[in-house]
Amino acid sequence: MTGQGTGLKPGEALGILGGGQLGRMLAIAAAQIGLDVHVYTDEADSPASRVAAKTIVGAYDDEAKLAAFAREARIVTSEFENVPAATADALVAAGAIVRPDPRALAVAQDRFDEKTFLNSMDVPTVPFAAVNSLAELEAALSRIGTPAILKTRRLGYDGLGQARLQSGADAAAAWEKMSGAPAILEGFASFEREVSIIAARGADGSFARYDLCENDHAGGILSSTRLPARASPAVSAAAEKAVRRVMEHFDYVGVLTIEFFLMADGALIANEMAPRVHNSGHWTIEGALTSQFEQHVRAVVGWRLGPAARIADCEMTNLIGEDASRWAEIASDPSAHLHLYGKRSTRAGRKMGHVTRLKFPPT
Amino acid sequence: MTGQGTGLKPGEALGILGGGQLGRMLAIAAAQIGLDVHVYTDEADSPASRVAAKTIVGAYDDEAKLAAFAREARIVTSEFENVPAATADALVAAGAIVRPDPRALAVAQDRFDEKTFLNSMDVPTVPFAAVNSLAELEAALSRIGTPAILKTRRLGYDGLGQARLQSGADAAAAWEKMSGAPAILEGFASFEREVSIIAARGADGSFARYDLCENDHAGGILSSTRLPARASPAVSAAAEKAVRRVMEHFDYVGVLTIEFFLMADGALIANEMAPRVHNSGHWTIEGALTSQFEQHVRAVVGWRLGPAARIADCEMTNLIGEDASRWAEIASDPSAHLHLYGKRSTRAGRKMGHVTRLKFPPT
Repeated sequence: MTGQGTGLKPGEALGILGGGQLGRMLAIAAAQIGLDVHVYTDEADSPASRVAAKTIVGAYDDEAKLAAFAREARIVTSEFENVPAATADALVAAGAIVRPDPRALAVAQDRFDEKTFLNSMDVPTVPFAAVNSLAELEAALSRIGTPAILKTRRLGYDGLGQARLQSGADAAAAWEKMSGAPAILEGFASFEREVSIIAARGADGSFARYDLCENDHAGGILSSTRLPARASPAVSAAAEKAVRRVMEHFDYVGVLTIEFFLMADGALIANEMAPRVHNSGHWTIEGALTSQFEQHVRAVVGWRLGPAARIADCEMTNLIGEDASRWAEIASDPSAHLHLYGKRSTRAGRKMGHVTRLKFPPT
Repeated sequence: MTGQGTGLKPGEALGILGGGQLGRMLAIAAAQIGLDVHVYTDEADSPASRVAAKTIVGAYDDEAKLAAFAREARIVTSEFENVPAATADALVAAGAIVRPDPRALAVAQDRFDEKTFLNSMDVPTVPFAAVNSLAELEAALSRIGTPAILKTRRLGYDGLGQARLQSGADAAAAWEKMSGAPAILEGFASFEREVSIIAARGADGSFARYDLCENDHAGGILSSTRLPARASPAVSAAAEKAVRRVMEHFDYVGVLTIEFFLMADGALIANEMAPRVHNSGHWTIEGALTSQFEQHVRAVVGWRLGPAARIADCEMTNLIGEDASRWAEIASDPSAHLHLYGKRSTRAGRKMGHVTRLKFPPT
């Protein structure tokens, strides 16, 4: 925990790649503990830049701008996993420490690599196969069966680029939808519910995890999270074991999230991992002793992790698209902690804010 | 609660006069509920500007810059009470709504006016007298007695510009220390402890107060605050009555604080009022359902007040001057919520940050 080398002191600048709501909440958390935040984003007037000490607006492949960014922000983290490898390389070449390790980001950018990796860590997933042609899709279907889901391997985000297959007859239409992009066929999990584990690993190798989150999705987008999750201690322990193993593999520094399907028999099947703070952890702002945002900042700037204990039962609801037009009603509800991200335009499916409701004492 | 007229909608700009730590914490709270913050300060690279969407650096009498500020920030509040009347006038002339009412700020800028006002509201203070000459000081001393304190009437801040008088023999030296400035002689209160009440009044006239705070000062600077205060419900009720009366007098909108001496017999003697968020309310960030900062923002932008309930027992300790050099130790203490204000230089007596410790459940 020093200001030289691999850590930052108060007053030094933490760099954040990305200007969205996760960057905004990271920036606020960093400011609260006395750090300056420099944001690098390709978006003018981004949500994060409006709470940052400095913003550089540039393309993610603009090496000169990235180098200028890295000269002032000696440690750089990211609010999104789809950071191009060349971006991370340019930052490292300019002398920055990039945390978490770009290898973890790279794995999470490709659904096939991610599931292959998770299986290699003894973390089960649904059955899956790489698909590069209609013939490969048909072969994969005969092995995996239906229903199944065909997705592009890369840049999958919130339900885009996906096709559900109810039978082999859907193969051609589904493959068409991929527009020739490398794809992955995933088997279907008849899960009982969805849960996620959010954990942090410090630069000193220390570990902290939050209580297991229970999540509901609608249309491929998280709609709500509640704590405590309806899951046994054994399920929580299994989730912790998985996230710990993944983090240790990468000598990971920062917050990492794994989303799981919880099966009726108590088995956990990993759906995806996010090498970053996560929407299902927004409840930690009010509901935990240290928010996931402060926790991630502490980790990447080389400070000790904070306590992750939950202080209340929590329900977090996303405000998606026009949901946020109800802001005045929500702000008038004494049970609601309203968060709005400052996005300039409302679109269907766009995360505009969230609401957290607490219930004391925690169960 | 509308975006027209006397309120702001998410995405609109709230103006904050002043770039210090209170402005910084107000800006963070405003960002969390989706407002943009524009800071006006005479200080380059201020703590608040580093978390604001926009900063105008200018003198508080620069009418052109103030008008430019008011064109974008339709509602303006302040982090300090010593806003020159001409500054508020310029903002109002440029079309801004200034909250709280500049009349409340004006009264709090002059210790004599403030105590006169408080007495007029049936809020007791120590005996006091205006002093404009050595002869007036001697006359006041014969009425008020010793020990007593001579202070400049204006710009008193954190123990500066004060002289303690143990006997009439100290009069000449004390008067000398005022450098001819209009002064006030205040009698001495042998108090048992110091407490403060922090309350908010909405644009709709609604009222909310936080639990009474118990404060310790050292060298005229707040050193720590703890909740619950060692005070009876009757004392809390008396403090609430006083702060309510003061706020209603001004049709006040925002957070207002009154510091009191609590006497052995349970009587409350007002020491001073601050028409703003207050250092003794920093515990509300983690310790209350709505922080004093969000509460003030909600009030001035015309939203409903949030719930002010306390969720834990709290102890807030200021980090003054070199105290902040212990940041790494404090950040490693799992019981501590560390806040640092991003000040570029450390000076003796300067508030650099604070630490809040919670204990659940609240008593």
